[in-house]
Amino acid sequence: MNYVSSESNELIKKMKKLVHSSRTCRKEGQTVAEGIHLAKELVNHPELIRAVILRKDALENHEVSEVVSVLPIDKKKFYEVPASVYNVICPVEQSVGICCLIDIPKPAEIKPQEDWVFMDDVQDPGNVGTIIRSALASDVKNVALSVNSAYPWAPKALRAGMGIHFLVNIHTGIELSELKQKTEDICLVADARGGESLFNDDWGYSADKTIWVFGNEGQGVSREVLTLADKVLLIPLNPAVESLNVAMAACVCLFEQKRRRLSKK
Amino acid sequence: MNYVSSESNELIKKMKKLVHSSRTCRKEGQTVAEGIHLAKELVNHPELIRAVILRKDALENHEVSEVVSVLPIDKKKFYEVPASVYNVICPVEQSVGICCLIDIPKPAEIKPQEDWVFMDDVQDPGNVGTIIRSALASDVKNVALSVNSAYPWAPKALRAGMGIHFLVNIHTGIELSELKQKTEDICLVADARGGESLFNDDWGYSADKTIWVFGNEGQGVSREVLTLADKVLLIPLNPAVESLNVAMAACVCLFEQKRRRLSKK
Repeated sequence: MNYVSSESNELIKKMKKLVHSSRTCRKEGQTVAEGIHLAKELVNHPELIRAVILRKDALENHEVSEVVSVLPIDKKKFYEVPASVYNVICPVEQSVGICCLIDIPKPAEIKPQEDWVFMDDVQDPGNVGTIIRSALASDVKNVALSVNSAYPWAPKALRAGMGIHFLVNIHTGIELSELKQKTEDICLVADARGGESLFNDDWGYSADKTIWVFGNEGQGVSREVLTLADKVLLIPLNPAVESLNVAMAACVCLFEQKRRRLSKK
Repeated sequence: MNYVSSESNELIKKMKKLVHSSRTCRKEGQTVAEGIHLAKELVNHPELIRAVILRKDALENHEVSEVVSVLPIDKKKFYEVPASVYNVICPVEQSVGICCLIDIPKPAEIKPQEDWVFMDDVQDPGNVGTIIRSALASDVKNVALSVNSAYPWAPKALRAGMGIHFLVNIHTGIELSELKQKTEDICLVADARGGESLFNDDWGYSADKTIWVFGNEGQGVSREVLTLADKVLLIPLNPAVESLNVAMAACVCLFEQKRRRLSKK
């Protein structure tokens, strides 16, 4: 275990930058994973861990001490810091007191005929993390994001995914046209402004692999995306409600896909 | 328009208390509605508005000036305050600069045979607000909450609902047993720990009215709730994902109900 008492320590300065700038995360290929959910998941990915920062009181929490005892990494990678220093590198107000500096894993190659979710300029890191979680929950193991979407490996988005990021193949800064060409998938676009009802019987692509596209919180999907759509689908809403949050909408669409596939088995 | 420059003004002190304590909201029957979405919705409910607080620069925003010009209330109810005072009563970091002190509307009587959502100790105000929104989006116009759930009229939960609270009949501090008795509805409980698949064909209550029950973020639904369930349902998830966030799970369940009802028409 190392002890660091100063904010001007190089490691702390580096993590502070990563926490405050997703651009830095993207450029450096590293990020900060805060909290017990992420630490537990990292037990299965020790090769990603560069450093584990523990707030002075953190080991008093039995979940933290348990995860620390099973993390299969060198003791030299552990750092104890006072609360004043921890707060500088912690992206949330209430933390159990553990956060890790990690390498962002490299995505796997895009292959034909696999299911994908594509985010078209989804801005909110919480929405991005939640959509990644819903994707995997509904058996979609590949997620791609347009260059103007929130960076999925930024600390906030990573937290919202609750450890799911490490189980999903995540491509960033990619165009839908490229993804569609490489996968040869059917492209389904969720659009609150119009389209066929998600619940119509006839979108029937249950045998095929799909790319589900979800758009920006304010603007929805872009025109370019609409030109690439094989089908534009709309969740029927009570007229008093203008729209669902994009993470909610994605969850409804992805589980409707799952339902259709289960019912065909 | 009134001008208030001090935090020690009685109105400001009152609103500060409401923002920081949902217990005070519950006790006083009043709350603080922050932001443009809520202000727009309040145009249709002017009888609820006690005061409108505008940050000094707020009217420079055209959405704010537009909503202020159409709010059908006495000019005496408007207060302009400097940013330093506004920040004391504003529940969020970034605000367009409008928030209203309002009376919490009284719920309508519980009648037999109407659809309901019941929250069993849902703790997070954001989840509560989001679930209320999903309920109405899926045509469920009545929402009830156990006494240990987050208070739905607390400023944070109100914000998360984005104005939907005023269109829904909301009962707080009620037992599921009472609700079930009064409505004579079928009681459907979502439980991540087990139950029949949500997507099975045979829960077939499409003709009947239902109470959908969603439980605490960590513990799920309570034992008492399970004894009242007519059916316990589970969303089938990829084995790598332990559970969905309760707001996501509620959205999937409520739209599956909506889908079944639409398909029977």
